[in-house]
Amino acid sequence: MAYGKVYLAGAGPGEASLVTVKAAEALKEADCIIYDLLVNKELLKYARPGAELLFVGKKGGKETIAQERINRLLVSMAKKHGTVVRLKGGDPFVFGRGGEEAELLKIAGVPFEIIPGVTSLAAVPAYAGIPVTHRDFSSSLAVVSGHADAVKKKSAKQWRALAEGPPTLVFLMARRGLAEITKKLIKNGKS
Amino acid sequence: MAYGKVYLAGAGPGEASLVTVKAAEALKEADCIIYDLLVNKELLKYARPGAELLFVGKKGGKETIAQERINRLLVSMAKKHGTVVRLKGGDPFVFGRGGEEAELLKIAGVPFEIIPGVTSLAAVPAYAGIPVTHRDFSSSLAVVSGHADAVKKKSAKQWRALAEGPPTLVFLMARRGLAEITKKLIKNGKS
Repeated sequence: MAYGKVYLAGAGPGEASLVTVKAAEALKEADCIIYDLLVNKELLKYARPGAELLFVGKKGGKETIAQERINRLLVSMAKKHGTVVRLKGGDPFVFGRGGEEAELLKIAGVPFEIIPGVTSLAAVPAYAGIPVTHRDFSSSLAVVSGHADAVKKKSAKQWRALAEGPPTLVFLMARRGLAEITKKLIKNGKS
Repeated sequence: MAYGKVYLAGAGPGEASLVTVKAAEALKEADCIIYDLLVNKELLKYARPGAELLFVGKKGGKETIAQERINRLLVSMAKKHGTVVRLKGGDPFVFGRGGEEAELLKIAGVPFEIIPGVTSLAAVPAYAGIPVTHRDFSSSLAVVSGHADAVKKKSAKQWRALAEGPPTLVFLMARRGLAEITKKLIKNGKS
């Protein structure tokens, strides 16, 4: 079975021009682009006429089923096309489930390449004027899923480690978990 | 005093095409580009003819003096030119001292903008086939200076927090500190 090549590419943190030159080039070459909810739709301007554009935005509870569907789609599109770009918000390997997609492609024997992207973990604080590291204040950071389920699952030991570890803490997807997160950190001695 | 605009821009983790489209555009417009040792020199291809190219690579012990010199240079070049790009390896706000440069520009009244970049913290593991997060294994990561001085300064409590905290640990600039880092982590119960 001959497969085309799949690029697992990062779209960056939002603004279209924060995509990499390499990802933009891959989008221009692509016969098929499979893109997520968090990807800036403006990036589809790079697609050549006739390219197959597939939206696979996931919402809410049905994540696992959707991911399996995406996995099958990746393989079937790689059968059909010479170049497929799987475009994911931020960086494909930072909270993006790109690791699972790469595993699947490896198992299926589909050739693939990762194109890292600008991740929100540093870009969003940057746009708010906050460097995640600073010589005078913080020489380490932790990046943590702030999803309510992930927050609930953490042990007392893990909360202590977060409060006593890297001075800079970045919680992603933390809107609903925020109250619980701050409570646990303060309880463990974080200012 | 009228100043030009300074872009504090990330050059990405090495490969020239991993620069963002936005940083590439800024490089094309720049009257002056001030670049570091870790920046891929190939990126200077974007510079327009006649742009002033200043190399400010820092090496070894004289870092503080060099940073002060860079700070003065940034302000004087913003006086002289309409558009200045300060091009830094990786992302300017991740272990890049971009925070200090932004502070200085703010104090001096120089208009500036941050252009985030792809940081090595996820890109280097990605090229080695390692996603820094994975649904089945790790929903958090810590990024830590592995510089020998920073390693020596860490308290027993901080080592315990690193060993018990985020499953994925990324140490930057850790070549010389590696033996000490692994020893401390294992001593604190990390596998």
